[in-house]
Amino acid sequence: MIQRMPAKEKTQTSSDWVSTTFRVRYAETDQMGVVYYANYLIWFEIGRSEFCRQHGFEYRDMEQQDGLYIIVAEASCRYKSSAHYDDEIEVRTCLRAGRRRVLVFGYEVYRSEDHQLLAEGETTHVIVDRAGRACTLPEKYREFFAAGVKAQ
Amino acid sequence: MIQRMPAKEKTQTSSDWVSTTFRVRYAETDQMGVVYYANYLIWFEIGRSEFCRQHGFEYRDMEQQDGLYIIVAEASCRYKSSAHYDDEIEVRTCLRAGRRRVLVFGYEVYRSEDHQLLAEGETTHVIVDRAGRACTLPEKYREFFAAGVKAQ
Amino acid sequence: MIQRMPAKEKTQTSSDWVSTTFRVRYAETDQMGVVYYANYLIWFEIGRSEFCRQHGFEYRDMEQQDGLYIIVAEASCRYKSSAHYDDEIEVRTCLRAGRRRVLVFGYEVYRSEDHQLLAEGETTHVIVDRAGRACTLPEKYREFFAAGVKAQ
Amino acid sequence: MIQRMPAKEKTQTSSDWVSTTFRVRYAETDQMGVVYYANYLIWFEIGRSEFCRQHGFEYRDMEQQDGLYIIVAEASCRYKSSAHYDDEIEVRTCLRAGRRRVLVFGYEVYRSEDHQLLAEGETTHVIVDRAGRACTLPEKYREFFAAGVKAQ
Repeated sequence: MIQRMPAKEKTQTSSDWVSTTFRVRYAETDQMGVVYYANYLIWFEIGRSEFCRQHGFEYRDMEQQDGLYIIVAEASCRYKSSAHYDDEIEVRTCLRAGRRRVLVFGYEVYRSEDHQLLAEGETTHVIVDRAGRACTLPEKYREFFAAGVKAQ
Repeated sequence: MIQRMPAKEKTQTSSDWVSTTFRVRYAETDQMGVVYYANYLIWFEIGRSEFCRQHGFEYRDMEQQDGLYIIVAEASCRYKSSAHYDDEIEVRTCLRAGRRRVLVFGYEVYRSEDHQLLAEGETTHVIVDRAGRACTLPEKYREFFAAGVKAQ
Repeated sequence: MIQRMPAKEKTQTSSDWVSTTFRVRYAETDQMGVVYYANYLIWFEIGRSEFCRQHGFEYRDMEQQDGLYIIVAEASCRYKSSAHYDDEIEVRTCLRAGRRRVLVFGYEVYRSEDHQLLAEGETTHVIVDRAGRACTLPEKYREFFAAGVKAQ
Repeated sequence: MIQRMPAKEKTQTSSDWVSTTFRVRYAETDQMGVVYYANYLIWFEIGRSEFCRQHGFEYRDMEQQDGLYIIVAEASCRYKSSAHYDDEIEVRTCLRAGRRRVLVFGYEVYRSEDHQLLAEGETTHVIVDRAGRACTLPEKYREFFAAGVKAQ
């Protein structure tokens, strides 16, 4: 599912994007007949989970085994077009910055059927331990994430 | 907010019902233009929290201080009429059974404006400790809950 | 994805069950560390959508083209075991009754990894038109649904 | 609930802020023990609804009577501190810009108990009609919104 872009590509898509797809749930629509805007942040989360999995580890293990949590410091989303019930959605996720203390993920949300861009967004994260203290990302995870930004 | 019913009342409404009100959120509607059905279970939860508060303790403390969790074993809901965005909703909650190991709550959901019954439901709970083992409700909580069913 | 059970099977599993799988989202967990109970009703809905698709039509079209809505009259769920973040979940859906005015769906929710039954439930539905009036299921849909209960 | 700030105040708080309070629902927590980040966008929506109500109209009527929809073009949130189950939350909402075609709302989310700032954010909206076409805000609504930004 990892789609490597050509090396000469200059834009952010030059890094590894990880793609995941799913269908819009009825529960995600609102009375306007489209997906309610907060759900895109849930979809970004699905993208992050899949990004981790594709880069060799599960975020679940990071929490359980290492007691580390990737918490959200900032989130933003620009809505371009509406998603509807039962649409197949593709979330593409990349790592825009993977530093010792901060991770920045970028997202693009498409409708699979017509490749319409529905939204794009960004989330900034810090790493904390079980006590909620900011800490640096351990070496082993830095390697995983480094693989994600190496092509940039 | 506790509404005591006349003693001669025979039905379940003879016990203490605790009432709580809030407005329907846009996020809770779906493309049919009404509140999505799973949200009623979230509303029942709001009713349970308020029931505990009105009976002298906070469920939050039960988890944090005593390491006890009220988990859900069964839930059911009968939908009578639709709720719409911005409707003021009243959830009325009672304790139908408060035994050593099992709690059964009953709920009625009304639209405040016209007192229309929107739904009624029931949830059955067991008590578990941090390790997830079933355990009996400590004496102090039994008293709180006993107060909730004494009039039945 | 339709798994036909042997004809001699007596239980409800003798009918057609439709299976769909997905991963638990972080957003679906609560502070107890497990999936919040209302989400199972959302998962049932995913099961219903997939049931329709596997039986030859899309519920989306039924709403858009025929102006018919399958609304929920009753829902119930019995919780057997907890689901956790990132678990792969399998929802199995069957049609327990498909009459002219009423549809009853049954559900079983499993964790794929260890085939643990997490929950089972049932929803009862009535058909309404755009004006919200109860109506009978048109012939063409009755055939689709009939295929779903024929083996019972 | 409208809190008018002193006229000499220069910052954005010089305009009308509308405040609304509610308690954190159990469903809104995640396995980290805090409110899941997407819920803040739902809370912003509650703030917007209340802002409209306090300025003399209901967003519900705008949709139903005038066939106008305030859709979201952009949303952002900066997370400062965590919210927990049963915390009383105060969402303060202001209108940062109310032009003919674009509305920009600002938000601050506080925990009532200790006045801790939990998050702040912004949403940008455009007005569309039933057909989804961008349109200008009718005069009568512009007056309502103008009242919201007049002190800026």
